[in-house]
Amino acid sequence: MHVSSERLLDDGVVEREFLLGAVPGILWTAGSAPGPAPLVLLGHPGGLRAMYPRLLARARHSVGAGFAAATIELPGSGDRPRIAAAEQARADLRRALAAGGPVDDGIVDRLVLPLVEQAVPEWRAALDALLALPGIGGPVGYAGGVISIGVRLAVVEPRLAAAVLFAGSVVPRAVLEEARRVTLPLLVLLQWDDEGNDRRRALELFDAFGSAEKTLHANTGGHTGVPAFEGDDGNRFFARHLT
Amino acid sequence: MHVSSERLLDDGVVEREFLLGAVPGILWTAGSAPGPAPLVLLGHPGGLRAMYPRLLARARHSVGAGFAAATIELPGSGDRPRIAAAEQARADLRRALAAGGPVDDGIVDRLVLPLVEQAVPEWRAALDALLALPGIGGPVGYAGGVISIGVRLAVVEPRLAAAVLFAGSVVPRAVLEEARRVTLPLLVLLQWDDEGNDRRRALELFDAFGSAEKTLHANTGGHTGVPAFEGDDGNRFFARHLT
Repeated sequence: MHVSSERLLDDGVVEREFLLGAVPGILWTAGSAPGPAPLVLLGHPGGLRAMYPRLLARARHSVGAGFAAATIELPGSGDRPRIAAAEQARADLRRALAAGGPVDDGIVDRLVLPLVEQAVPEWRAALDALLALPGIGGPVGYAGGVISIGVRLAVVEPRLAAAVLFAGSVVPRAVLEEARRVTLPLLVLLQWDDEGNDRRRALELFDAFGSAEKTLHANTGGHTGVPAFEGDDGNRFFARHLT
Repeated sequence: MHVSSERLLDDGVVEREFLLGAVPGILWTAGSAPGPAPLVLLGHPGGLRAMYPRLLARARHSVGAGFAAATIELPGSGDRPRIAAAEQARADLRRALAAGGPVDDGIVDRLVLPLVEQAVPEWRAALDALLALPGIGGPVGYAGGVISIGVRLAVVEPRLAAAVLFAGSVVPRAVLEEARRVTLPLLVLLQWDDEGNDRRRALELFDAFGSAEKTLHANTGGHTGVPAFEGDDGNRFFARHLT
């Protein structure tokens, strides 16, 4: 793990950009903390530069609640080399959504499943590196999308203790099956009027999770309209399960 | 309004039993408060004596968060005279649920609609009396079931500023239509595995509400298994909208 820059933000949060092999990432920690902070991984749909303002706001909120927060770029997104098959699947998805018809399961599978296969080992490698840093401790939470990545991480990563998942993306059939094997405490956020989201599939996914403690928070509004109070709810959820 | 008893509970909460005409009720307030407390009406399915332990726990939680809390007995329940038509409808509902088939809309209408017609004016009369007491102020919140009573109150009662509704009862078609006229901020609680509840109808009802701010909290577990943290969430919701 190579830290390429470190700066102190005006609210005392320390932001470190890093490279883990060829994967860029960002770590946010409190400038001063009494002991190791539990780590929250910030999931996102890809494109760190474009997502930066929203990620920074989420990170500040996490650090303010006593956590460290970190994220990495997704395969094929941002400054990383494009993946031809993923680009093709994304174009096919856009075309299907624009046509207003139902999206073929084949397109969803081609878009999401290879992404999960490649991204999850990278998130786990990032965990290895981040948890080795001073001031960062377990247990670990995952917060955000891509929800299919969160589901796979919840199944395979024993250091993950709880997850806040954004039901804001297309979900392959296979992920619905995989969700039955998830047993972590979950908080699932659903934007009720999300234009790019299949509400029925999202509810089906919530139903499928095997977790004894799972909570769905659905709010009015579109994809990016998650109310600010959900940030507080997410922090309190992590406080219950990570501290 | 006739106060029939007053006692100080061990945690400093003052509990007053009252009669409003023939309608019994209970009011809980803080023994000492800096000023008038916003009032939260505690809805329930009827039967104050049987519901008392759960109502008291909810009331203590509300008072601890700075509110006053009050409830009244429903028509035909507890110590109030039975209503023959309602008893018949309740028996028909039990038979339909026991048979495992879908419940006929006619039974639901016969059970719930007359209850709403009679109960809502009683809740409003209770509001008149309670808000005239020293130490109790507006705005007012409604928390609980019967959800159809909450919907009607939200439509007709201008002093109501926010509601936490338990999606835990059978809902007439007409209430789905009425819900479109609700514009209050809402927090709707749904027990995902509620054996006596129609999940699809509950989601349809949440979808129908006309409120710009509405949030659904769905949790694993049966009818009476609402997690304790939802009490805190409800108090924070009321704190946002009543204070």
